[in-house]
Amino acid sequence: MIRVKIVGAGGYGGVGIVELLLGHKQAEIACLADINDVGAPISRLYPHLAGYCDMPIVSVSDPKAAEPVDVVFFATPDGVGMASAPKELERGGRVIDYSGDFRFNSPEAYTDYATRIGRNTLHAAPQLLPEAVYGLAELHRKDLNKKTRIVGNPGCFAVSCILGLAPAVKNGIVRLESIICDCKTGVSGAGKKPSATFHYPARYDHMNAYKLAGHQHVCEIERELSLQAGQGVKVTFTAQVVPVCRGIMSTLYADFNGKIDRKALVDLYNDFYNGSCFVRIHDRDCGIGSSHVRGTNFCKLIVDLDERTNRMRIVSHIDNLLKGQAGSALQNMNLVCGLAEDEGLRQAPKYP
Amino acid sequence: MIRVKIVGAGGYGGVGIVELLLGHKQAEIACLADINDVGAPISRLYPHLAGYCDMPIVSVSDPKAAEPVDVVFFATPDGVGMASAPKELERGGRVIDYSGDFRFNSPEAYTDYATRIGRNTLHAAPQLLPEAVYGLAELHRKDLNKKTRIVGNPGCFAVSCILGLAPAVKNGIVRLESIICDCKTGVSGAGKKPSATFHYPARYDHMNAYKLAGHQHVCEIERELSLQAGQGVKVTFTAQVVPVCRGIMSTLYADFNGKIDRKALVDLYNDFYNGSCFVRIHDRDCGIGSSHVRGTNFCKLIVDLDERTNRMRIVSHIDNLLKGQAGSALQNMNLVCGLAEDEGLRQAPKYP
Amino acid sequence: MIRVKIVGAGGYGGVGIVELLLGHKQAEIACLADINDVGAPISRLYPHLAGYCDMPIVSVSDPKAAEPVDVVFFATPDGVGMASAPKELERGGRVIDYSGDFRFNSPEAYTDYATRIGRNTLHAAPQLLPEAVYGLAELHRKDLNKKTRIVGNPGCFAVSCILGLAPAVKNGIVRLESIICDCKTGVSGAGKKPSATFHYPARYDHMNAYKLAGHQHVCEIERELSLQAGQGVKVTFTAQVVPVCRGIMSTLYADFNGKIDRKALVDLYNDFYNGSCFVRIHDRDCGIGSSHVRGTNFCKLIVDLDERTNRMRIVSHIDNLLKGQAGSALQNMNLVCGLAEDEGLRQAPKYP
Amino acid sequence: MIRVKIVGAGGYGGVGIVELLLGHKQAEIACLADINDVGAPISRLYPHLAGYCDMPIVSVSDPKAAEPVDVVFFATPDGVGMASAPKELERGGRVIDYSGDFRFNSPEAYTDYATRIGRNTLHAAPQLLPEAVYGLAELHRKDLNKKTRIVGNPGCFAVSCILGLAPAVKNGIVRLESIICDCKTGVSGAGKKPSATFHYPARYDHMNAYKLAGHQHVCEIERELSLQAGQGVKVTFTAQVVPVCRGIMSTLYADFNGKIDRKALVDLYNDFYNGSCFVRIHDRDCGIGSSHVRGTNFCKLIVDLDERTNRMRIVSHIDNLLKGQAGSALQNMNLVCGLAEDEGLRQAPKYP
Repeated sequence: MIRVKIVGAGGYGGVGIVELLLGHKQAEIACLADINDVGAPISRLYPHLAGYCDMPIVSVSDPKAAEPVDVVFFATPDGVGMASAPKELERGGRVIDYSGDFRFNSPEAYTDYATRIGRNTLHAAPQLLPEAVYGLAELHRKDLNKKTRIVGNPGCFAVSCILGLAPAVKNGIVRLESIICDCKTGVSGAGKKPSATFHYPARYDHMNAYKLAGHQHVCEIERELSLQAGQGVKVTFTAQVVPVCRGIMSTLYADFNGKIDRKALVDLYNDFYNGSCFVRIHDRDCGIGSSHVRGTNFCKLIVDLDERTNRMRIVSHIDNLLKGQAGSALQNMNLVCGLAEDEGLRQAPKYP
Repeated sequence: MIRVKIVGAGGYGGVGIVELLLGHKQAEIACLADINDVGAPISRLYPHLAGYCDMPIVSVSDPKAAEPVDVVFFATPDGVGMASAPKELERGGRVIDYSGDFRFNSPEAYTDYATRIGRNTLHAAPQLLPEAVYGLAELHRKDLNKKTRIVGNPGCFAVSCILGLAPAVKNGIVRLESIICDCKTGVSGAGKKPSATFHYPARYDHMNAYKLAGHQHVCEIERELSLQAGQGVKVTFTAQVVPVCRGIMSTLYADFNGKIDRKALVDLYNDFYNGSCFVRIHDRDCGIGSSHVRGTNFCKLIVDLDERTNRMRIVSHIDNLLKGQAGSALQNMNLVCGLAEDEGLRQAPKYP
Repeated sequence: MIRVKIVGAGGYGGVGIVELLLGHKQAEIACLADINDVGAPISRLYPHLAGYCDMPIVSVSDPKAAEPVDVVFFATPDGVGMASAPKELERGGRVIDYSGDFRFNSPEAYTDYATRIGRNTLHAAPQLLPEAVYGLAELHRKDLNKKTRIVGNPGCFAVSCILGLAPAVKNGIVRLESIICDCKTGVSGAGKKPSATFHYPARYDHMNAYKLAGHQHVCEIERELSLQAGQGVKVTFTAQVVPVCRGIMSTLYADFNGKIDRKALVDLYNDFYNGSCFVRIHDRDCGIGSSHVRGTNFCKLIVDLDERTNRMRIVSHIDNLLKGQAGSALQNMNLVCGLAEDEGLRQAPKYP
Repeated sequence: MIRVKIVGAGGYGGVGIVELLLGHKQAEIACLADINDVGAPISRLYPHLAGYCDMPIVSVSDPKAAEPVDVVFFATPDGVGMASAPKELERGGRVIDYSGDFRFNSPEAYTDYATRIGRNTLHAAPQLLPEAVYGLAELHRKDLNKKTRIVGNPGCFAVSCILGLAPAVKNGIVRLESIICDCKTGVSGAGKKPSATFHYPARYDHMNAYKLAGHQHVCEIERELSLQAGQGVKVTFTAQVVPVCRGIMSTLYADFNGKIDRKALVDLYNDFYNGSCFVRIHDRDCGIGSSHVRGTNFCKLIVDLDERTNRMRIVSHIDNLLKGQAGSALQNMNLVCGLAEDEGLRQAPKYP
């Protein structure tokens, strides 16, 4: 059994991986750590878990939280994972970090990111950056293996955009300077902490754009697309919130370089994701939407184009808390532990 | 492997049992039958199932739908199950019916029910009524065994009310003529068929009482409580819809016969449900609500009383599509097939 | 023109009276006061008001907030209105207070209330209590006139319950010890302040009972019903939240003393509210719900009974922010200023 | 008093203009006509109007529906208005049509539209097309005057996109071939008729793109932008539905021809809409969203740009049922009747 510790267990990202691990046949939860709610069973914070997981939360400074495990998930904000990762590695654990701490594997790239989001540009563990792997298995599967010690789990918006654009960018069929990501997220993406913006009466019949001046996920989108393109890529990115709970719908636009028809485009996407069990390609008449990926680790891509303007249009759907967070994290754990990529992720979702 | 057929697979009740069976280790889906969408994979109707279950729907008159199976779920309206049950039994299958067809095990009781809901009072298979078992395991577990051939799966409101009231009624601590069931259901309880009442703009910020003149679930509530009481019981029942998708919250009132304190009341409920893994007893400070049972087969009862008026108050929470329908159905299948009662029902739900 | 000051202008109760006053032909807003957001135009807090009302909020300690006005609305929590009322009266203003401060017109009654909600039982201005009028015009219209200086605006749940029960209680047709109020409120009733309970992801598909140990509105319900009955009345009251924004649906039960038919009951209610333009009586087949009172000052009562158990059942619908708060407040202002009762309250709502 | 008839009174578009006219000081409703619910008071269909408007619906073939009025609103689908307009004009009424029937003032332009939406390309009253005015006052105010007899009220998506793009297109600051309209609408935009797509359980936590192959509103967007540009314009348009009731948020992108800074861009927009009381310009830090235009006739534009890619980004918010439909219709009526443009449209909305 793979023994797992979750740091930041009390947030939506923490509870998301707990839910998944409860159905995983080869892993078990060894420790739930957090800085809040210490001593409380997680099922007091999350009563839906009562009878499924009643393990108490321990303080991150508790000796129990320092016992060696096989995998540590840092479901924590920027800065936490990088401070603790060296010690975890020393103890023999692998680290899967949800924040931006390990999404950029050079100090320069990290500095760029930190600058944009207004954080200290000095990484606390720069020596680890070269070995960190960006945890989007569909692009980096070969680097996610038993030798991998550190995974930078991708941002939710980034997953939806990168998966939607990578095949076109990789194959050079779109003008790189024409890419636009129009992204809509459900409210759970903002996490568990109450705020005026996510107060029910202010949110239930409300949609809005936010962070127009710049969103932190742009850095990783541009970095990953640049890697695919073999040259620098800049995108226009718009973050928007709509009153759904779970789900991201990213509508992605780019001008074609030449002519391509719908069938060829769909084929190109199917080819690119051949072997990626969590990406599904649909055409414009599929009738799918966000609730059809809710509760799953799928990314469903509607691959489309506007013939009249010769422009590509991809509609990318994920569950922001699964493929956009805990689901990708578990997928990464499976890969770095040598398990089947979809272990613990095969459970059918519930609808409606 | 237990081979299962689902008649009415295309409705919410059908897809609910499909979702559960996909995670059941000792059962497999042999046939999905319906009168609509024949030939379509169920994942075309329900795209969330794509990759999980892509089995086509066959017509109920198709020879494939007549092949013998071990268990047949009739996820169908009143009248369908009773017409087909004799033939299914002949073929060696057990029948679990979602409608009122087999909830009353005497022709007289059925006639009473049929009268109230304005249906033909003659049952199509009256010879089967004596052996039909009301499928609420918490009250009829001993009759749900390998000899059981027919189960009348209970109504969703009924489950929430009966489980909330049975311990008090059985123990004679409340005045039987004082029982009030104030019930609120989520919209999925009305099924998949669109209507003006459940059109999103008319429903999203709307709550209302309905069927004030009489709701069909009252019959089974009164019948089951009468069996517990050993005498006739009549209740006042109010059905209400609120804009949640999944969930029933029934607030149940009854005057105490004598004095009882909160602790004793909670103990009495705990005793009654000792051995019933899907009922959980809470006290008034628990802070739980409908989303904490969503996606589970639990009935969570807040056991409370109003000291000032010496009145019992129970708040009963279930997921109307699980403990209120497909979950109870699978629980019943497990019992009549001699399996663990919670097989296929242990999966942790997802939140938020 | 009647000059109006609103203390606590930045909360939902404050903005609610602002919205109404903007459409009132004989009143104008003289001052918006609050302890937060001082200096900001109210349209910065509430962008929906931009172009309608851009008046800045002044500090309650600002000299401008001390200028005499004709009417002061205290849209403030318990304790604020009682501290300031004497000074406002001195300056010649009438006081309409949203809290419990002036809902009880004897020190004893106030003490009872304060005890139940765990506040200091000493009223800060006990000398004013005898002249305070409980601001439910349908019961106290004759005391709401140009001589009235202080109005205790009723609680939202209380409005829905008292209006639903008063005719029956007054006419002695129900057993007083059998009254049950099962109340469901929309989330706006909890005000503007974010909290874990009203965070969108925790609330959108969630319903729950709360404050089971006792809700502050019970005091005024019991007091007003006792006045109608001419004897002490105790009720069982259950507060519940459902995911609508605006609306209260209170389902009210009481056993009849004798026999009464539906028609007679409806007539009795119609007679009682003859002359009350904001109460509308419906029968059980009306098909109405909360969105049909949203944006209005109506209380719509579905007057019904359960023949089988000889029990009265009333379903009372109000918009908690209007008839349950700012609408009643304006209705009270109109009466104490000698204006038409519905001035500023005749505007048709918008649907859906 | 201007006497008004509404054809199609029973739909959301019809009831929307009814609500507004009830607060209009110089107009009165003379007739509500429809093909459904004939004889019923409109308040039976829409109980929120009880006490505000209880006028019965008459059949369109009823003689009462043929009595002369000053203004006729056709709140009807394509094809209805064009069939009846000649007769209405003969009787001396002005026609304001909600459909595409009079949005294109040449037979060729109409044919193009009809072809795209798969309708008969022959207009039933082609002789009227030359005098029809596209009812977007902000662009055609000078043609909306007492001589105007026919107004083609614009489509909801079109209003949001055209208002958001016209200043940039008119001033030649963007590359015309680079325009993208990413539009999100609330569910009320689909009207009152129930369907599987808008059934509450299928819609409440769901967002999706639809009509990817082509949406009928594209024609008018392109036509109006072409008029502004003085040359043909083609746009990429994506229609998406999110679970809000009222509101459209259109995010509009275009590459700049040269360099322009944010301040200059905002100034250009402010200049363009100088004198247009229903358009408000905001910058990226405004924090507004759809609920801040709900219940109003405003179009609120967040005027922004992406410096890194030299691309314009406008976020356009309207209430789809007001500025996107009935509000614009009333604004048009005011103009063609010589009234203040905002008569009946000044009422403050309610929030939350």
